[in-house]
Amino acid sequence: MSPSSAPVDAVQTQRLLKLTEIIHFLHSRGWTPATSSNFSCRLPDEGSPGFSISVSGLDKGAFSAENFMDVDFAGQVIHPEQAHLRPSAETLLHALVYQKDTSAQVVLHTHSVNGTVLSKLYEAQKGIGLKDFEVLKGLEGTATHQTEIWLPIFSNAQDMSALSAEIEAGWGNHPPLYGFLLAGHGLYTWGATHAQAKRHVEVFEFLFDCILKLRSHGYPDYSR
Amino acid sequence: MSPSSAPVDAVQTQRLLKLTEIIHFLHSRGWTPATSSNFSCRLPDEGSPGFSISVSGLDKGAFSAENFMDVDFAGQVIHPEQAHLRPSAETLLHALVYQKDTSAQVVLHTHSVNGTVLSKLYEAQKGIGLKDFEVLKGLEGTATHQTEIWLPIFSNAQDMSALSAEIEAGWGNHPPLYGFLLAGHGLYTWGATHAQAKRHVEVFEFLFDCILKLRSHGYPDYSR
Amino acid sequence: MSPSSAPVDAVQTQRLLKLTEIIHFLHSRGWTPATSSNFSCRLPDEGSPGFSISVSGLDKGAFSAENFMDVDFAGQVIHPEQAHLRPSAETLLHALVYQKDTSAQVVLHTHSVNGTVLSKLYEAQKGIGLKDFEVLKGLEGTATHQTEIWLPIFSNAQDMSALSAEIEAGWGNHPPLYGFLLAGHGLYTWGATHAQAKRHVEVFEFLFDCILKLRSHGYPDYSR
Amino acid sequence: MSPSSAPVDAVQTQRLLKLTEIIHFLHSRGWTPATSSNFSCRLPDEGSPGFSISVSGLDKGAFSAENFMDVDFAGQVIHPEQAHLRPSAETLLHALVYQKDTSAQVVLHTHSVNGTVLSKLYEAQKGIGLKDFEVLKGLEGTATHQTEIWLPIFSNAQDMSALSAEIEAGWGNHPPLYGFLLAGHGLYTWGATHAQAKRHVEVFEFLFDCILKLRSHGYPDYSR
Repeated sequence: MSPSSAPVDAVQTQRLLKLTEIIHFLHSRGWTPATSSNFSCRLPDEGSPGFSISVSGLDKGAFSAENFMDVDFAGQVIHPEQAHLRPSAETLLHALVYQKDTSAQVVLHTHSVNGTVLSKLYEAQKGIGLKDFEVLKGLEGTATHQTEIWLPIFSNAQDMSALSAEIEAGWGNHPPLYGFLLAGHGLYTWGATHAQAKRHVEVFEFLFDCILKLRSHGYPDYSR
Repeated sequence: MSPSSAPVDAVQTQRLLKLTEIIHFLHSRGWTPATSSNFSCRLPDEGSPGFSISVSGLDKGAFSAENFMDVDFAGQVIHPEQAHLRPSAETLLHALVYQKDTSAQVVLHTHSVNGTVLSKLYEAQKGIGLKDFEVLKGLEGTATHQTEIWLPIFSNAQDMSALSAEIEAGWGNHPPLYGFLLAGHGLYTWGATHAQAKRHVEVFEFLFDCILKLRSHGYPDYSR
Repeated sequence: MSPSSAPVDAVQTQRLLKLTEIIHFLHSRGWTPATSSNFSCRLPDEGSPGFSISVSGLDKGAFSAENFMDVDFAGQVIHPEQAHLRPSAETLLHALVYQKDTSAQVVLHTHSVNGTVLSKLYEAQKGIGLKDFEVLKGLEGTATHQTEIWLPIFSNAQDMSALSAEIEAGWGNHPPLYGFLLAGHGLYTWGATHAQAKRHVEVFEFLFDCILKLRSHGYPDYSR
Repeated sequence: MSPSSAPVDAVQTQRLLKLTEIIHFLHSRGWTPATSSNFSCRLPDEGSPGFSISVSGLDKGAFSAENFMDVDFAGQVIHPEQAHLRPSAETLLHALVYQKDTSAQVVLHTHSVNGTVLSKLYEAQKGIGLKDFEVLKGLEGTATHQTEIWLPIFSNAQDMSALSAEIEAGWGNHPPLYGFLLAGHGLYTWGATHAQAKRHVEVFEFLFDCILKLRSHGYPDYSR
């Protein structure tokens, strides 16, 4: 599949190549199974307002930089040449992130076993409090492991407008917001650069693994 | 080992190359240990009715597209040139799937630790109910995580005719059927395309891992 | 390090290249950490009686076919040109296997986390009974998952003569013998071919993982 | 990023290439997530006293031998050409190790899930006693699994001078010292050669995994 007839922007092409490399890394870690997960990158300022997002339903192990398409913040296809392509089913959630956090350049939605398990264990509590881990310093702007970060968990839904509205409503409750979990579904996180967004996935996945193991060894629970 | 004297069909050769790529992916995930697991691909309609199946007893890490042989739905070798080869011991189970689900083009039998463990934990209950996981949408035709899917578990046996009859008897009990577990033995799943069959393995393996972890954290049990 | 001045045997060179490939596979699985583990291959019948064994203390991720040396069944260096090399500290255990099982051509001693953990959990019971797993058919000569296999566990010791004598004393107690564990130390297994020996490691490692998971989910214990 | 204008020392360049290979191995094992972890190598005796250390904040999966910079034992940049670079935030801890253990040539600070989890479970006890594992022989100078090794755990802090002083105060309490954990943060270990330092990481990571699994199966606790 190649949306090759769409106009080519050299800067965005470079950014999508870089994003594709990150996708392959995430796939190698087992965080993008069964065509789940989706990824996007904001269009350059000089271009039309919107972002490039992964086409729906592709195997991330064979994903290439040609498997992105451009959409606006309403999730509508920008280039008529790409009208036959279907953007990720969760395009509206990416749009929401770009609109709420104007510094976000890259949005990554992964789907790991640990994220899924934690999202169900803490769904009733609507989030997880993270503190006293050195790796928290990997979240941009966090200077000490003693910072307390809240990772909200939203219930899953197939109606993206409704889900998007629910997330928007809870957005500002526990700043700063570095990501959120959808119950039984996975993680959304983002960054002002490719490296930052990738680092944020790694921070959260590391903590998911830690928390599950600490929990199974009777360490005090992560409620607050 | 090369069944090279058998007639060559260009379309089927392509399909077997593609299947071999999938086998290597499954091996890299650790789901095909110790020459266990077997794989097949339906012969093209224009050809003789039957399927190509992996030769018995080979290391899947070194498996090549030449390590398949053609058999009919009774499990009999089609080409005299391949009469010296031994098809997988579980050829009759593949034949059963192709006959019960006429859309199936590819059948994958993997053998993972998590599948084996779950199959023993839930053998008495004869299956596992799957619900409320977004990844269920990876099962072809499933549109929401709220669908309830039943994955049957059959007791293991070395008599393939008896085992095949038992599976056939239970086939229509909980439609739609995307796969089944053999107790202490592994997973059978399939698809109308290569990509679909591979995706189904990934969906089930993801869920096996989730369920075991949720179970060890005291999450409500998966009986129904 | 290259014992290059030793006489070259073309057949044995091929066998050591094949064994090196297996070592790299075992390393990729994480079963040969920290220069632990050692590997050997019987010398051809026409040659001097004895075997080629890995030189002591090397990183198995960088192991090459030149890192073997030849010893006799008393563990003594065969070629004066290799007198400066130190064979694996556990050479006498390899010698024991070749003498007790005359069909053994390759001996593999791996050192996995799961094998280590199980060996300590069941040390007091002196072994683990294995039954009702399809993968048991990967042990050469086993035709059904209902076979009961006993994997003995011996206490660890640094005195190889004493340890060797203890293992020899227990050798025939539970035939057939496909391998044994040393407590806190790892697995020894072997085979009449390279492929068989590799398969036996995979069977045991698969079962170690299964047993630990089943055990943590309250499945009946593996004592007998 | 390339500190290319700094003076080039051929011996040190070789040593940094070798260290980079080790970093990539550690990254492949998942022990250097999210730009955490840092690595260093003592400068040759003929050179200025100090060491080369990884530049702060880089993705270890893309780390190259050019991403080191030279500092003295006070953590100050040695070459004016590198004054614009920022050494790892934990440079003072590396300096401490080189000063306390004059045989140390390479210092590795990894950041694994298991190390993090254990460091929190045993923080109150201020360390973990290690005994009866064959792999302990991988710690240089240890001749038997019956040796008892103490791995101290220090509380984490962002003030490196204070943390460094605390570690120095506890340094000689349980000789020999092969490494230490920082709570919620990770492992420091080192060696008189590259191979030795790498082996020490592998020994500790292997034991972390063993201890967590033994603990979850009710094996007697590792306090003393």
